[in-house]
Amino acid sequence: MSDEPRLPCAILGASGYIGQHFARLLSDHPWFEPPLLGGSARSVGRRLGDLWQLAEPPPVEVENERLRATSPSRLARQGVRVVFSALPSGTAGPVEAEYVRRGISVFSNAADHRMDPSVPLLVPEVNADHLDLVGRRRGGRGLLVTNPNCSTTGLVLALAPIVPLLRPRAVHASTYQSLSGAGYPGVPSLAIADNVVPFIREEEEKMERESARILGTRRGARVVPLPTAFLAHCARVATREGHLEAVTVEATRRPTLASVEGAWTAFDPLATLDLPTAPRPPVLLRPESDRPQPLRDRWAGSPARARGMAAVVGRVRWTPPYLRFFVLSHNAVRGGAGGSVLNAELARARGFLPTRGG
Amino acid sequence: MSDEPRLPCAILGASGYIGQHFARLLSDHPWFEPPLLGGSARSVGRRLGDLWQLAEPPPVEVENERLRATSPSRLARQGVRVVFSALPSGTAGPVEAEYVRRGISVFSNAADHRMDPSVPLLVPEVNADHLDLVGRRRGGRGLLVTNPNCSTTGLVLALAPIVPLLRPRAVHASTYQSLSGAGYPGVPSLAIADNVVPFIREEEEKMERESARILGTRRGARVVPLPTAFLAHCARVATREGHLEAVTVEATRRPTLASVEGAWTAFDPLATLDLPTAPRPPVLLRPESDRPQPLRDRWAGSPARARGMAAVVGRVRWTPPYLRFFVLSHNAVRGGAGGSVLNAELARARGFLPTRGG
Amino acid sequence: MSDEPRLPCAILGASGYIGQHFARLLSDHPWFEPPLLGGSARSVGRRLGDLWQLAEPPPVEVENERLRATSPSRLARQGVRVVFSALPSGTAGPVEAEYVRRGISVFSNAADHRMDPSVPLLVPEVNADHLDLVGRRRGGRGLLVTNPNCSTTGLVLALAPIVPLLRPRAVHASTYQSLSGAGYPGVPSLAIADNVVPFIREEEEKMERESARILGTRRGARVVPLPTAFLAHCARVATREGHLEAVTVEATRRPTLASVEGAWTAFDPLATLDLPTAPRPPVLLRPESDRPQPLRDRWAGSPARARGMAAVVGRVRWTPPYLRFFVLSHNAVRGGAGGSVLNAELARARGFLPTRGG
Amino acid sequence: MSDEPRLPCAILGASGYIGQHFARLLSDHPWFEPPLLGGSARSVGRRLGDLWQLAEPPPVEVENERLRATSPSRLARQGVRVVFSALPSGTAGPVEAEYVRRGISVFSNAADHRMDPSVPLLVPEVNADHLDLVGRRRGGRGLLVTNPNCSTTGLVLALAPIVPLLRPRAVHASTYQSLSGAGYPGVPSLAIADNVVPFIREEEEKMERESARILGTRRGARVVPLPTAFLAHCARVATREGHLEAVTVEATRRPTLASVEGAWTAFDPLATLDLPTAPRPPVLLRPESDRPQPLRDRWAGSPARARGMAAVVGRVRWTPPYLRFFVLSHNAVRGGAGGSVLNAELARARGFLPTRGG
Repeated sequence: MSDEPRLPCAILGASGYIGQHFARLLSDHPWFEPPLLGGSARSVGRRLGDLWQLAEPPPVEVENERLRATSPSRLARQGVRVVFSALPSGTAGPVEAEYVRRGISVFSNAADHRMDPSVPLLVPEVNADHLDLVGRRRGGRGLLVTNPNCSTTGLVLALAPIVPLLRPRAVHASTYQSLSGAGYPGVPSLAIADNVVPFIREEEEKMERESARILGTRRGARVVPLPTAFLAHCARVATREGHLEAVTVEATRRPTLASVEGAWTAFDPLATLDLPTAPRPPVLLRPESDRPQPLRDRWAGSPARARGMAAVVGRVRWTPPYLRFFVLSHNAVRGGAGGSVLNAELARARGFLPTRGG
Repeated sequence: MSDEPRLPCAILGASGYIGQHFARLLSDHPWFEPPLLGGSARSVGRRLGDLWQLAEPPPVEVENERLRATSPSRLARQGVRVVFSALPSGTAGPVEAEYVRRGISVFSNAADHRMDPSVPLLVPEVNADHLDLVGRRRGGRGLLVTNPNCSTTGLVLALAPIVPLLRPRAVHASTYQSLSGAGYPGVPSLAIADNVVPFIREEEEKMERESARILGTRRGARVVPLPTAFLAHCARVATREGHLEAVTVEATRRPTLASVEGAWTAFDPLATLDLPTAPRPPVLLRPESDRPQPLRDRWAGSPARARGMAAVVGRVRWTPPYLRFFVLSHNAVRGGAGGSVLNAELARARGFLPTRGG
Repeated sequence: MSDEPRLPCAILGASGYIGQHFARLLSDHPWFEPPLLGGSARSVGRRLGDLWQLAEPPPVEVENERLRATSPSRLARQGVRVVFSALPSGTAGPVEAEYVRRGISVFSNAADHRMDPSVPLLVPEVNADHLDLVGRRRGGRGLLVTNPNCSTTGLVLALAPIVPLLRPRAVHASTYQSLSGAGYPGVPSLAIADNVVPFIREEEEKMERESARILGTRRGARVVPLPTAFLAHCARVATREGHLEAVTVEATRRPTLASVEGAWTAFDPLATLDLPTAPRPPVLLRPESDRPQPLRDRWAGSPARARGMAAVVGRVRWTPPYLRFFVLSHNAVRGGAGGSVLNAELARARGFLPTRGG
Repeated sequence: MSDEPRLPCAILGASGYIGQHFARLLSDHPWFEPPLLGGSARSVGRRLGDLWQLAEPPPVEVENERLRATSPSRLARQGVRVVFSALPSGTAGPVEAEYVRRGISVFSNAADHRMDPSVPLLVPEVNADHLDLVGRRRGGRGLLVTNPNCSTTGLVLALAPIVPLLRPRAVHASTYQSLSGAGYPGVPSLAIADNVVPFIREEEEKMERESARILGTRRGARVVPLPTAFLAHCARVATREGHLEAVTVEATRRPTLASVEGAWTAFDPLATLDLPTAPRPPVLLRPESDRPQPLRDRWAGSPARARGMAAVVGRVRWTPPYLRFFVLSHNAVRGGAGGSVLNAELARARGFLPTRGG
């Protein structure tokens, strides 16, 4: 891969919180050129640095770039065949479809197409084979690949290694979700200071149906969901980044605790692919009594490019038939922009993307 | 009751966070005199107002009182026959036992005696009949009554009305517990700012065993625990007061949602007793999509003396066999000092306490 | 005053944070009837309880009232001659002027008319005589009285007693302002969690010019500002309510510290008027080394109706010519709705308002 | 310098918050070997990784090292001639003196020796020549160099470039200091959540006397303090790291604003020395209306090794004779461990340290 030229790309919705994480991850990516920054009518013409919301400083490669209109025809003229979509769910659907029709591949963080039968809802370590849902002959159309909801990603990364051992009857998850999951401006400070809000619109529904699909089995052109009951409680707490989840698995099998923990630590399904943003290993098992914590574990993941891409598991308790643990992952990186970047890397490594722009 | 003289009382451990809530609740209580303030070697002689940690100002009745030694013999000389214990778990056990031996009744917030077979672990709306565990003839000994752990109280209040309808196979609870649950100084700010800590020592064990006992059935001198699996995840979040809990009940029966909600709203088992600190009703069912919240619901409870004593239930979802909801209660009031004050009121109303001091 | 009927009144902008504090303060006021709730096109028809943002529960008297259109002619038909304005600065100006023209008296929290030469900018304990700026003959017009900016009020309350002793050359103030000062939704949580924002638009300018005017001297129909340099730094911190200010006065006189402290504790200029919402005393001097604090001192003020109306001064240090101290006041009560309610009480006590509605 | 061997060194008080920042900065330093970790009786034998409090992960070079006793004789035997002291003020004084007597140079963050006439209180960009206070002939004694209090450092970095232009009569500073300034466990969460604490013991006194000394003029073996009145208010806010300060300078000269800003941007006194941890430039002037902010500016400073070492100035307002601005610096890096590391680099570059261990 290293000899091939970097691909031109663009970000749709670059002014938002996820858009800015895309800009951060793509500004010096070995396989993609620094992205064009797509904006809305309200943000076109503004400098990215002036819109910046993240605590980390804006990358020098794109800090002074201005947001621009990125219609499919403009992008086509500029040889851009790959876009990363940080468009808000609801408006993303038809816009993304239009790019795909015009031959541009879309890696999307939006919810709109996640449950389309022919669209892969992808977490590369978990269900890389779902990429094949798109088929090889697409008649000039671009690829459309989605990453799951930010609270789903950590959960399925933690479950993937152990589902075969436990064959769960039910999975219970209660979330402690960070402020950035709501984007910017998002949650008013007066709504959350000294408070917890036990409601995030549509979040529980997304976690439940997306988890069953991602952990499901591809049968030709469709996915058979995992036959497990998923039961979520989603709540917002006053942390900046990192979604923590309390998980209880009701198992139908009784493996030893050692074999469960071994399944997590041995898990490394992308080992041979050498994707730049893939965390190695993808799941970190912490032995301390009080981890994972958002403050300390949100940026877990190595190598350096994979910071914030690992899921961290801890406080494992096995009282059969119930396995309990906490899992944490960075909602805006692993559960957002980074998830789609990794999807694009997988797609390119597997030959689903052009080897050069234009 | 109103014609009887108020009883003298004392607080053990008046300098701590729960001790100060005791002082707040007892400073103008209709059945008890303003309390003597018991202190440790370190705090004896100091003015309560100078040690005050609560956001609410100290009550004028006790603000200028100084902490003092409150050995059983001193209290006996002063005619004090009732003490409220805010001693730390671990040291409380033998100290409380000594008071009881000396004929002084103890209402305790400490964990040490909660699982003693002959000691009532009491939430008056839930298991008032467990008070009879103490027996009527106690040979000059005082009463010993405990209130449960702060995270247990809200849970059992929410469960009591619906357990008969649902006959739960399992109860899953994940907590969002406030800083004050750890007392003062408690959690260092650097440990919790922008963070969640998914561990509170012994908390999950307490919730599980105490809930089964409180919801259990008294058979003569013992309690048969409720035959339900309790599965807790306990975590600390950066709120000041009020413990929120996400609860999933796996039911073996399938009542209608209306009958479940009706069970909550009709629940008022103390209606005839007129206890001053009893909230009426004890469980509030909120219809909003985003309640209960610690900031807004922690002080729920009427009449005025019962502020902070109600449990607030919301976000009820019934997808049989799973009933899901959130419950909130004030950990330091309902789940702490207020719980023991209500226990003492029940004991007095039922004739377990002397009608006058001395 | 107690024999007179209560006056009908209305709130303009009842859905906002200050509007809700107005509703809280006026729902059971001895001199005013529970208010009509004025709303905008967006909020008319909605129930106040459904829009409620404060941590305190909505008052039962108005919780179920719906917001309504409150044009001057409607109010006139209903006999309402007094309105409290929580309209946003910028739009408040012409709207309030129209009410005044139609014979309705306006007590406003908005900035628009504060610097009009004929409009009193009033803090009753400080410059009650500025009320006379309005003149007695107003030809059918209503009164227009403003309260100052939330960060100004605490400062002038602290300065009023000591300005005659110190004759300041300069007053330096740095603020630690709470989230509620920006209203709702106001500051995004991602902008302020783990952060301080050292900028509040126009705030420093308001503090400086309003302080000089309020502490100035009325000469007939105009006010001569206090000839002192005011130098402010305004910053937002992540507290919910209560503005703290660090103040350094550069004095031209050298009184003793005892006389300065005596001036504060003796200050009680409204003693004879018996205004229901007036805190007695208006300035509390705390001796502790670490007070005032927003969490503990924001609700200072007695009697009960005056909670949140007192300014709390502490950490007084006198190193001539510099006097240093901190002052705290509740921005939404004393520095907002409560300020205007007190203004209306003063106006009524001094005969500037009709003695009955209609 | 690059050809010389790295010097062995040790940290005194490695378990604390500043000690851990020392470990972070020294673990891969080009001029110093990874440090020995000195602990107290309570921490000796424990693994650094198990004691870690910072949000950043512990450096791999020292994560598995155990704390050890580091008496002067032990260090001498191991060839360690340089120690970095994170000992608490109060106990640091005699301990540090003993190391110096034994020929070991001490770079200290503690307050005890800061005002000793013969001990440099050093901020290299501001008063590098004060290093000469130590004299060249020290008779086998080690060097003793201190860095100032965390709230002093940012202030003097901001003032140094402009003092010659403004010749201040007085400097007023109000601080917004972060939680980490109090170390770990430091401030209890219940004391600061939803609060500001307007008191930090001895902090105002330190800022005032240290600033005058650092900005003073060396005359032979002594320093003549800057003849300016320093007037501080110090307060704690609920941020994790980074001290913000509101500064007003009362000037006796009237330069243009452009020349003041030019003085800041041109300031780079260490340009020729190539110290590894020196930020270039040391003062960053931000043009935005709402900067500096702790969240966004605490890690300012380049090159990479100098992250958190720059002071960030913004919101500059010049209304003669008053110049107002905000300044932010990272209290634990620039104002703590990083300050002492930079002092040691200066000392080595100027030949005050041995060129090799032992």
